[in-house]
Amino acid sequence: MDGSEHLSKRQLQALQTRENLLNAGRSVFLEKGFQKATMTQINKLAHTGYGTAYVYFKNKDDLFTELMETIMQKMYDVAALPFQPSSKEEAFAQILEQTRLFMKSALEEKEVMKIVKEAIGVSAIVEEKWNNIRARFIKGITKDILFVQQAGLVNEKFDASLIAKGWFYMNEQVMWELVLGKIEDDLNTVSENLTKLYTGGLYK
Amino acid sequence: MDGSEHLSKRQLQALQTRENLLNAGRSVFLEKGFQKATMTQINKLAHTGYGTAYVYFKNKDDLFTELMETIMQKMYDVAALPFQPSSKEEAFAQILEQTRLFMKSALEEKEVMKIVKEAIGVSAIVEEKWNNIRARFIKGITKDILFVQQAGLVNEKFDASLIAKGWFYMNEQVMWELVLGKIEDDLNTVSENLTKLYTGGLYK
Repeated sequence: MDGSEHLSKRQLQALQTRENLLNAGRSVFLEKGFQKATMTQINKLAHTGYGTAYVYFKNKDDLFTELMETIMQKMYDVAALPFQPSSKEEAFAQILEQTRLFMKSALEEKEVMKIVKEAIGVSAIVEEKWNNIRARFIKGITKDILFVQQAGLVNEKFDASLIAKGWFYMNEQVMWELVLGKIEDDLNTVSENLTKLYTGGLYK
Repeated sequence: MDGSEHLSKRQLQALQTRENLLNAGRSVFLEKGFQKATMTQINKLAHTGYGTAYVYFKNKDDLFTELMETIMQKMYDVAALPFQPSSKEEAFAQILEQTRLFMKSALEEKEVMKIVKEAIGVSAIVEEKWNNIRARFIKGITKDILFVQQAGLVNEKFDASLIAKGWFYMNEQVMWELVLGKIEDDLNTVSENLTKLYTGGLYK
């Protein structure tokens, strides 16, 4: 049950066309990369009429952000994981899991993430989407650090928001290298190294 | 004495024209940003004949990388700082200084660095220059970590090259935020927070 049983035949066709365009878009982006992909190629591959892609999507940037949605949603979920540890050990376990899940959600859609990496810097809308992810994580981590500072687990002198940025950026950049195949270690080794460095430095 | 006393009048004029073009280029890049700057605008501002800029520089990317040289050289010097601490405290002091100098060299040329940030991702040659900086730092930090692991100051289980990447990327991304005015803390506070987190986590 996805609600589609109440749609007219015409509406169902529209949904189907949209889905075809997204699938075609995915193939074209993965083959050509972000900058070289065109709406014309996508239309062609989807076997839709000339210009049809523009009925459903404003431009290729718009279509591509739809393809990013699944990953973005997973990442928002990871950023929103609850965090109220009562010891350094509990904190370590929870942060390790968050880091692992963040990297995993990127690696599961490695090919799309490669295109995201390329599109950031050339597409304002993709960059904005990614900046939302960044902001969400940094806000969440800042809150987490303030919590453990209040709980007396962490030195109060650390600037929570600055440390949150540093920690997120470390994760983000290492994630890009994993996505691009530039790091040989597996996901668990990577997550453990980073989390150990971070919690070892932050916690009393 | 810069060696120019042995140059012919013609050679001196060429050097002067080159210098004028670089100064004009600097102004144009700072005003227009990387993507919107053109060689025509640079020629115009330098009052050099039509197309003269192309005699001295292959394209705007080439001219811009010349403008990056001073910063790059400073950063290479920072990356090459000797590091052979005999205690955690000595390591902290030296890493703090390296971090501070890295951020400082970027902040001293803040406006050019903003353009570098914009140019990475759109200019292959600027990106390559920046990747050389990254590689140099990561190589240097990896060597430093291996040294302190050998010296027994740091747990051997840490993957030196991975930690080096994480630490450099944390510095790099925070540096960009400082350059873009997105961090309110001063240079010293920023360097201290990051170095404390890093050495606290890495050292025994």
